[in-house]
Parts: sequence; structure tokens; C-alpha cells
Amino acid sequence: MAKYNGPTRFPDLPVKGPTGNELIQVERAKASFDVKSLSKFIYGERYLQKLDKIVPILESEPAFDKSRRYFQGRDEKIRDAWKKDRRFLELAKEHNWDPEDEKIVHGLYDQPSPYRLHYIMFIPTLEGQSNDEQRKLFLEPAKRDEIIGCYAQTELGHGSNIRGLETTATYIPETNEFEIHSPYLSSAKWWIGALGRTANYAIIMARLIIHGVEYGPHTFCAQIRSLEDHTPLPGLIIGDIGPKMGYNTVDNGFMMFDHFRIPHISMLAKYAQVKPGSGEYVKPVNSKLSYGGMVHVRASIVSETGRALARSSTVAVRYAAVRRQFYDATTPRKWGDETIETSVIDYTMVQYRLLPVIANAYALMFTGKEMLRLYHLNIEAMKQGNFGILADLHATSSGLKSLTSFMAVEGIEECRRSCGGHGYSMFSGLGHFYNDYLPTMTVEGDNNMIYQQTSRYLLKTYRDVVAGTAQPSEHNLTLTYLAQYMQNPKAKCPAATATEFLNPEVILTAFGFRAAAGIAKVAEQIDNQGRSWNDALVDLHRISRAHCQYFIVRTFFVALQHATDEGLGMAERKVLQTVASLFALHLMEKDLSDFVLCNYLSPEQLDMIKQQVQELLKIIRPDAVALVDAFAIPDYMLNSALGRYDGNAYVALTKMAEQEPLNQTQVVDAYETSIKPMREYALKIRKDLSKL
Amino acid sequence: MAKYNGPTRFPDLPVKGPTGNELIQVERAKASFDVKSLSKFIYGERYLQKLDKIVPILESEPAFDKSRRYFQGRDEKIRDAWKKDRRFLELAKEHNWDPEDEKIVHGLYDQPSPYRLHYIMFIPTLEGQSNDEQRKLFLEPAKRDEIIGCYAQTELGHGSNIRGLETTATYIPETNEFEIHSPYLSSAKWWIGALGRTANYAIIMARLIIHGVEYGPHTFCAQIRSLEDHTPLPGLIIGDIGPKMGYNTVDNGFMMFDHFRIPHISMLAKYAQVKPGSGEYVKPVNSKLSYGGMVHVRASIVSETGRALARSSTVAVRYAAVRRQFYDATTPRKWGDETIETSVIDYTMVQYRLLPVIANAYALMFTGKEMLRLYHLNIEAMKQGNFGILADLHATSSGLKSLTSFMAVEGIEECRRSCGGHGYSMFSGLGHFYNDYLPTMTVEGDNNMIYQQTSRYLLKTYRDVVAGTAQPSEHNLTLTYLAQYMQNPKAKCPAATATEFLNPEVILTAFGFRAAAGIAKVAEQIDNQGRSWNDALVDLHRISRAHCQYFIVRTFFVALQHATDEGLGMAERKVLQTVASLFALHLMEKDLSDFVLCNYLSPEQLDMIKQQVQELLKIIRPDAVALVDAFAIPDYMLNSALGRYDGNAYVALTKMAEQEPLNQTQVVDAYETSIKPMREYALKIRKDLSKL
Repeated sequence: MAKYNGPTRFPDLPVKGPTGNELIQVERAKASFDVKSLSKFIYGERYLQKLDKIVPILESEPAFDKSRRYFQGRDEKIRDAWKKDRRFLELAKEHNWDPEDEKIVHGLYDQPSPYRLHYIMFIPTLEGQSNDEQRKLFLEPAKRDEIIGCYAQTELGHGSNIRGLETTATYIPETNEFEIHSPYLSSAKWWIGALGRTANYAIIMARLIIHGVEYGPHTFCAQIRSLEDHTPLPGLIIGDIGPKMGYNTVDNGFMMFDHFRIPHISMLAKYAQVKPGSGEYVKPVNSKLSYGGMVHVRASIVSETGRALARSSTVAVRYAAVRRQFYDATTPRKWGDETIETSVIDYTMVQYRLLPVIANAYALMFTGKEMLRLYHLNIEAMKQGNFGILADLHATSSGLKSLTSFMAVEGIEECRRSCGGHGYSMFSGLGHFYNDYLPTMTVEGDNNMIYQQTSRYLLKTYRDVVAGTAQPSEHNLTLTYLAQYMQNPKAKCPAATATEFLNPEVILTAFGFRAAAGIAKVAEQIDNQGRSWNDALVDLHRISRAHCQYFIVRTFFVALQHATDEGLGMAERKVLQTVASLFALHLMEKDLSDFVLCNYLSPEQLDMIKQQVQELLKIIRPDAVALVDAFAIPDYMLNSALGRYDGNAYVALTKMAEQEPLNQTQVVDAYETSIKPMREYALKIRKDLSKL
Repeated sequence: MAKYNGPTRFPDLPVKGPTGNELIQVERAKASFDVKSLSKFIYGERYLQKLDKIVPILESEPAFDKSRRYFQGRDEKIRDAWKKDRRFLELAKEHNWDPEDEKIVHGLYDQPSPYRLHYIMFIPTLEGQSNDEQRKLFLEPAKRDEIIGCYAQTELGHGSNIRGLETTATYIPETNEFEIHSPYLSSAKWWIGALGRTANYAIIMARLIIHGVEYGPHTFCAQIRSLEDHTPLPGLIIGDIGPKMGYNTVDNGFMMFDHFRIPHISMLAKYAQVKPGSGEYVKPVNSKLSYGGMVHVRASIVSETGRALARSSTVAVRYAAVRRQFYDATTPRKWGDETIETSVIDYTMVQYRLLPVIANAYALMFTGKEMLRLYHLNIEAMKQGNFGILADLHATSSGLKSLTSFMAVEGIEECRRSCGGHGYSMFSGLGHFYNDYLPTMTVEGDNNMIYQQTSRYLLKTYRDVVAGTAQPSEHNLTLTYLAQYMQNPKAKCPAATATEFLNPEVILTAFGFRAAAGIAKVAEQIDNQGRSWNDALVDLHRISRAHCQYFIVRTFFVALQHATDEGLGMAERKVLQTVASLFALHLMEKDLSDFVLCNYLSPEQLDMIKQQVQELLKIIRPDAVALVDAFAIPDYMLNSALGRYDGNAYVALTKMAEQEPLNQTQVVDAYETSIKPMREYALKIRKDLSKL
């Protein structure tokens, strides 16, 4: 009789002791507030209703199925991504999805797709920089998905330094064309999402040259692949840049131009223009309006960062509630009459690692919202000719992008690690997520560069304050805390007990003082002691960080002040206030030396802060699961065995393992080709040796 | 004429400006010391000679080829791993490799393989716990590779808590057998390397039960798969646990037992025994010797951690030297008469991020060496009945394993990030490496648990010192710094200038004081204020960390004291001394608040430390490339476009991209099935609409 060589299946056995579901229900019963009310406050009812409508649609769509995701190699992954993009267009039509719905769909599906770049980079660039003719020629077909575009800026040898781009666009008066050319290997466009194998149009950033004179980088739009057979147009070398740590569902690509000619209309002409024939260059009207767009993108990044932490802490906190390890001698865990192992979330070390991530998630969600509010406020103000909000907001947004995406990467990874060994399995859902999140640190300004914009602004503001030329404004927080500091640069924190550090006023003053003192010191060094900018980079980073932390802490506290007017119940507000205090004090604890360096806090006060953090963790502990439930992230989105709403993590791990391709037969092919021959080789050697 | 649909190739163009090779040669010319001499001091000549011999062998072996690695999905990866394992056995024979050679081969190949577990877990367990009969039956065939084993301890529901393991081994007197059984789903063995599809034998940890009485976890060895056709034996369910973030070349597996009977001989009987028939349990002779083995494993982890940082910093520093971005206004970079963009390594922020990683690498290499030295010293001492070294060394090794593997993960990731966007490409080599390194945080004691062993020992030692029962010993550093602290718990750091922080004595005293003060405080809280162990976990972690940092800093300084006697030249010693100072002060800077909390450092001294770190970075900068060259890591091992010895990073990126499977045709299959239909759908909708 042939032996069984079919798939491996687990027996139908329960887990030992209470099930994950029983354990997580105990957690939910402990909540001090109403989860649904809090969700509604965060997202609004409309969003939650949309979510309820869309999730079942995606769950039943084969093209949106996630069950194969963790087993796929790159080839299969990207093929599925194209399939999904195709199906998405049909579904969007069928269900009449509006842009908000579409955003929800992409968020839920949670895997970057080639076509996204078309919507988030190609179309917005055309919107912003086309003249009327170009809108008809490029933008309209793009919006109807008849052409698919990408945004080709970064080069092999140049990322952050846009002025250093090497690709040239030379105006040819004879034919009224531009000739796009890559003079060096390092000029190859590189990292361009959707360029590798998808896009048939591209936005191209190139240095404009007219009659031998250089005019710096300008924006062009051109067809790059045949609309008949999709081959690259003559003069172009296009390909995929190869595998990445994540984002492998997108064909990030390269492109080299060999004297590639494009028509005059290709140069996007809303701002700068080249006159046909004469080649006369018409300068762009310098517009501060474009800064607004950047603020919007960065506000989105900050909001997404909040959601990233919400998602990771949902997985980690739920799993920490159902995962039990060791019997705690001091406070034994009881289940009926039985003593059971303690849920790891009851260990203070786990609380110290995880609960601040929940706090960070809430803090950044409020920060994202506030940035969007200021963005809209600013648009209105600019229409009135008031540019007072813009400068502060734009400068702060750079540092916030940098700081918060670092916070997210750290938080996601801390959540993954807190899951112990199983966090390393793809089935945790956090590894995949981490790998796809990583580029946020680099895109829209590398985190390790971009903070300098904030620092530069902070120094300038300081100089204005010193010179008495600063114009006070209710929206300019920087002026507020700088002025306060300068009134008394030798001030000391007045808190005499640990409890006083729960007072938002005390906390905010400390964050403001620390930021101001740092700014004053660097400004002094650069302006009066001849320290160079390069020499000061590390300290410049510290002041950007300090300023942005002040902004986030303040935003969180202020949001809660008005929250009850906006419909938040007392119980929900109370728990959020504790979360806000934890957020602020944990942040302080991590950067304590900054607060000491400026002589604001004493060693005794440091100790109080550390104590207070521990107290807050104890208060928040019973609400931990409810606080992540309130993030309202569906299981379909999490795609995690460990973070399921029902708590049955171990059962889910076995179900997912049954799907592993290697488990579909009892013996793998490689047995015959590799494993068996090794044993035979070993036996043969023994026989050979015994003959000697 | 049919259009070209073949592979994509880059044109033969140079990069702009000086080549990477020219730039890196400039760096090498700056070195203040001899790279080869330093390499020899670190590794010894013998190791370097072996390396020179082995690298060309692997480079020319198809089974050891790395060029497809970054493109492979999991299936292909693991099939290649089995192939490589097979070929390895032949090569080892052919070249007569000794264990040291084999270790070098595995290190160079740098991808975990199913068969490794056989050598590092299965055989050593048999070595340690078999009686004579079992050595013949299991160990000898294992050593001849006739059977392939794995080590089945961890379960789905239990990792760190070994006493909580659920698998039972019930002695059956009637047949003189053990019955291995998995009573629950959570009892499934899980994460077991090489179990999934490779091993035919297993070490199994299970709770021994005799006549209804439990004796806790014991070790068994049993066949689990047919030696004829490799199918799992009846009563076993075996499979692979599915994809992980890394380590996908190993078939980590699960196994469930359904009343699986194994013979009496299966219980490894060197220590505990069960008498045949009667079932009488013979207690193990409690042996402290087994601790020694753990120290050895942990010493290896610390050494590997040093090498991990060596490797990562090699890639990052070389790339930072050849990657140029922005013109630095203060000190413009000249190339002949031309002003060129500045190498990013000349930005102080980059130096601040990367040079400490080099310092960490050196520090941990010396620490690993020192642990091995103490390990051997201890073996000798134990033979004389002297257990004085063991306690301190064993306790410290837990915290060191935890601290250093955290340092490595952070360092690898910092290096990857410092490469900007290209760090995210698999071609950087760092993503692959990071993913495979991650499990070090969990194996051999989860980093977030294991430090408690160190903390427990530190508290015990403190109590001994207070009680006057501590026995002084030259190898017990803990006693030394505790005694020093207790002489004057109100001591202050005497340094009056930044330069005084270059004095090893000043630094070491500070690290010792800070550790002692932390220990004293927690001991006081637990012993006299009723604080529970669980409540103190965060502080217990801090003292373990403080103690281990003291150990590493001291080891580094002491190693340099004797280095010239051991053949290190003056120039090499000088640069290492600067590196050691950077290591120690950067560590201090990151934990400054600890040093303030114990009232040892003043705010002014904090500022001096920060200044001194900046000074040291400037001094080390010209030696940066030479310092990583001295790690002597061959390109074959790095497998990195960015970290190549020749500096030609951008050329290498294009060569690797040419190998991307998506680039082998100009148009991918998915064009017909997905991309083209999207355009057709869009055009159809427009036509439909225009008919309305």
C-alpha cells in the first residue's frame, strides 16, 4: 500500500487552558470606556460606515484575497498586483467608489501597487504644472486611465540633491523639440515606481539647457512605451531595479535616455516656459503656493504614521493578552480555581514596551489631523494674503515627517519583537508591514536630511526674536516658547512631586524650555562662535526633534481640551488624558539628558518622571485591549495570526501553516535530489573506509 | 521586423566625476596605520591564510554561487540550500576541511542551512547527555552524517518557559518504552530548525511521567522519519511552520505526537535515568559544568555580533566614501581644479551615525575574545574545584548576549539607513543580512527575558557585599566596582575638562559608579520597600545593561593595555585607543540620564562628553575606510553592490539589476493579461460614454 503523501493537517485539538478568545473577552470586560464611542470620535461615523460596507466586498473578491501573500516570491507578487489593479478599476466603477472609498480600499488591501503612483504622483504633478493644452493632452487621458504614468526624478547618483540631477533636456530650435539625454551611467533615472514594466508615460525631471545656457531642473511629460505593444520607445533603456526589502509589488524602475527627442509641448508650462523657435526662457512666477502641497503630503504621512502604530499595537497588545508565559509568584493569575500562567501583558517590562506605542499612535493621529486643519486654515489665510501660518507650518512639517516616521519604524519593530519568536513569522503580519513601511523614512525628503529645513527656520525665528523683528501670531508656537524662554533663561521646573508632572502646563513648559534652550545655544555657536553648519548637524537635529516633540505634545493636550465639545464622552476623555500624559512623559524619559543639559530639570525630578511613567502604565493596563480595539482595524487588514480580534492566535498559526507549499506533500522533491544522496554518500564513505 | 524583446542591458558609460574606485583610493591613502597589521592582530595570521585559501574555492563552486540569491522566492531558496548542503559534504572531504575551515565556509556563504542545526544543536546535545550505548547508537551515525537530527524543544505555546512545555513522555513499564504525546494543539513542537522537511532524527524535550508522577522536562532522542522513503513515522504529524522574515533557507518545523512510542534507550541517560521495568527514577547529579557550555555559546554570539557590525559598517562606510551629495559651502571638496560634491562621510551627521558602529564592532570583537579566554580559564579553575569565575562569567554572559545582540540589530539597521534609498535595495546586502540576524535576539534566551539572570546575580552580589560575605577575586569585576561605590556613594566625577574624559580611568570609574548606584537602588527597593520583582523589571533591565556596558568598556581598554606586547604596532594601537574612547563616550552619551540620576555627572560634564564625542569623530574620520578594511571581509561574503572593496558601487548596482528576472524580456507576460486590458477597459468606457 502506498504511503500517504498528501497535505499535512493539524488534529482537532484545543489549546491548553483558557482559549485566546476567553482571555481576550476578559480583557474587553475590563474597559473603563466605550470602544465604539472612541472609534467614532477618532474617525467619524461616516468613515466607519464606509469601512463596514467595503470590507465584505474585498473579502469576497479573489483578486483581493490575501491568503497566498506570505508565500509568494517577487514574481508572483507583482503579477498578482497587476491583476488586482485591473480588477480594482472594474470594482470602483461597479460600486461607484468615491476617492475616500478608494483610499479605504487601498488601505485595507495594504500592499503597494504599480498603479498607485499614477494617482499619487503622475496626475497631481500634471494637475499642478500643466497649462490648458497640456491638461487636454496628458491630464485628461491620465484621469481616464487611458495612459499610465510614473514620476521620474531620482537618479542612480542623486536622490536628495535635486539640483545635482544629471539628465539634460536640451532645446532644439530647429525642430522645436527637447532632447532628453543621460550623459553618464550615474544619470540613469532610478527607483521610479511603476516605471520598470508598467508605465507608458513619465514625468521626467531634467536640467533645461537652451542655447548652451543652463536653467536648472524642469518638469517634462512624455510617452515612453508604445501604446500598441508596450515596448520602450527607441532611445530609451527601461527596466526594473530589482528586489527590495519590501515594496516588491511595485516595479521601481530605471530609465536611460539616448538623445531622446520629445515635442515642445512636453515641458510643463504652467510656471516656466520656453518660447517656441526663439527658445526664449520665461521665468516662473515664484509661488509660495506650492509649499502648501508639501504640507498636505507630510500631514498625510504623519496621519499614516499614526495608523501604522495603531495597527502594530493592535497586533502586539492582543497577542500579549492571550500569550501566557511563566507563573508570576507575586500576583498569581487565577482561572476559576486554577492558577494559570500570566499573560505577558501583565509583566511591567512588556507594558513599558507596548503601552507607549499605543500612546504614540493616538498622539500622531491627532497631530496628523491638526496639520490638515492648519493646512486648510493656511489656504484660507493665503487667499487673504496672509502668509503668517505657512512659514511655521511648512518648516515644522519637515521635522515632523522625519521624527514621526522614525517613531513609526521603531514602534512597529518594538511591537514585532514583543511577540517573541512568533513575531518573526510572516504570519504575525508585522514583518511584511515593517518592510513595506521602511521607505517612508526616505521618500518625500530623507529623514536624515530634511530636518535641516526645520532647524534653519528655528534659527531664523530665534534671530528675529532677538532682533525684535518677529511678528507675533497665535499660530506661531515657536515664537511663543522662545519668548517665554528668553524672559527667564535660568528658569527651573517648578514640579515638586511626581503627580505634578501630570499637569499639561508643567509638561508643555518643559518641552518649550528645552527646545528654546537648544535653539539659543546652537544659534549662539553658529552666529557668534564661527561654528559651521556642517559641524553643528547633530545639534541641529536635536533642536528640530525638540521642536517637533513640543508640537505633538501640545497638539495632543489641546485636542483633549476641546474634545468634549466635539462629542467625546467623559470616560473616553479620561482615558485619553492618561494616554496623553504617558505619551509626553515617556517621550521626556527617553530624552532626559536634553532636559538636564539646559539645567531645567534636577536629578530628583528625573526620578519623579520615571516613577510617574510606571504609575501611568498601571492605570492604562486594564484599558490596553480596548484602546487598540478602538482603532477599529479589521482582521482582513491586519492579516495577522497573532492580532486577530477573536484572540485565537495559536489556532490561526496552525491554519496558516497548513497552507505552506512545502506542506502539500509529506516528502519534498528535494529529498530525492539532495537529502537522500547525502545519506547515501555518508554510508558509502563508511563502506569505503571499512574496506581499507 | 519584430521588435527587440530580449534582456535589458546598460550602455557602457562612466559615472559622473571621479569613479568610486578613485575616491576610495584617496580614502585609503589617508590611513594613519597599516591595515594588514591590524587585521593580523584581530584575527591572527592563520585565520587570514585560511580565508585566502577558501574564498576562491567557494567563488568557483556553482552550489556556492550567490548571484541568484536576492531574486529567489522561498521555494527556490530552500531547494538551493539543500543542494549546497549536499555539495558541502563532498567539498569538506575533498579539501580535508577541519572544523575551523568549515566555520569559515559557513560564515562566507552566509545563509543558514538546514544541516547546520545537526552540527550545532543535535550533535552537541548527544555529546553532552548520552551514555556509552547512546553514543554508539545515535552520536556516531550522526557524526558520520548517516542520520540527520534536529532539536525539538520550543512549542507553539511555550518558548522561554521551558518548565511550561506540554509534550509528555510517559514511561510504559510493560513494554519498557516511553510514549510521547501532544495533549493540546498548543503542545505542538514549533520553530524547530530542519524539522520541517529535512531531519530524520530528533532530540525531543518532554515532561517525564512515571507511574503518574511528573519529573519535569527531560531529553529524548528518536527517529522521526523513515530512512527508506523519508515519510514521517506513524503517530507523527510533521511540517514546515511557513515563511519568516529571514532564515527561509531553513525548514523550521512543527511536530505533534499521537501516543508515539519510543524505546527506553531513547531517554538520554548521562545525568537522569529511568530504571527499566521498575521505572525507578534516578536523579541527575547536579552539575554546574553545563553552565560552561552556555557561556561558550554566548561568547560565540557576542563575537558574531562584533562581526555583524564589522560587516555592516564595511558596506556603509565604503559607500559613504564614494557617494557624493551636495556641495559643502564651508569646506568645498576639490578634485583637481574642479569642485565636486562632498562625500557623505564628510557630513558630521553621517560620521555620528556610522563611526560609532565601527567602534562597537571592535569593542564586541574584543569582548567575545575575552569571554572565550575566561571560559577556558574557568574550565581550568573548575578542574581545581574553583567555581569563583563561573558565577560572575555566567551571569554576565546572559546580559551580554541580550545587550550586544540589540546593539547589532540597531547597528546593522543604522548602516542600512545611512545608505539612503539604495540601502533599501536587496543589492545593498544589508537587508538580507538584517533579516537573517534578527532571530539572534530571541534564540538562546529571549533578550527581553534573559537579562534577569544578570540582574538577579547583581542583586545577590550586592547583598553579599553589604553582608560582608563576598569573597574577593581578581576576576569578579562586580565586587570591585560595588566596593568602590560603597566607599563613597556620594562621589562626583572629577573631570574638569572635555579632554579628561579621554582618561580610561575616569571613564571606567563613571561606568562602575553608575552600575553600582543602580544596583544599590533597586536592591533597596526590593529588599526594604517591598517592591515586587515584576514591578521592578524595567529598572532590573537598566542595571543589567549598566553592568554589561561596564564589562565591555573595561575589556576594550584592558585589551589595548597589553596589545603592544601581543604584537600590535604603535600606529595601530593609537587608532584603536581613539576608537575605544569613542566607543565608551558615545555609549555614555546615549545613556546620559543614568549618569545624572545617580548624581555622578553634572550638566556641564554632560556637555563635555558630547563635545568630546564630536572631537573623536573628527580624529577618526580619515581612518574610517582603513578601519573597516581591517575587518578583512571579502566581497564574496558581503555580496553587496554598495560595499565593494573597489568602491564602484553604481556600476555594480546596474550589473545586478541586469539580472532581475523581469528584465529578461522588454515586455512582461502580465502586459497581455493585466496591463493592456486596463487600457482597453478605459477606452471602452470612454466610447460607451460618448455614445450616450
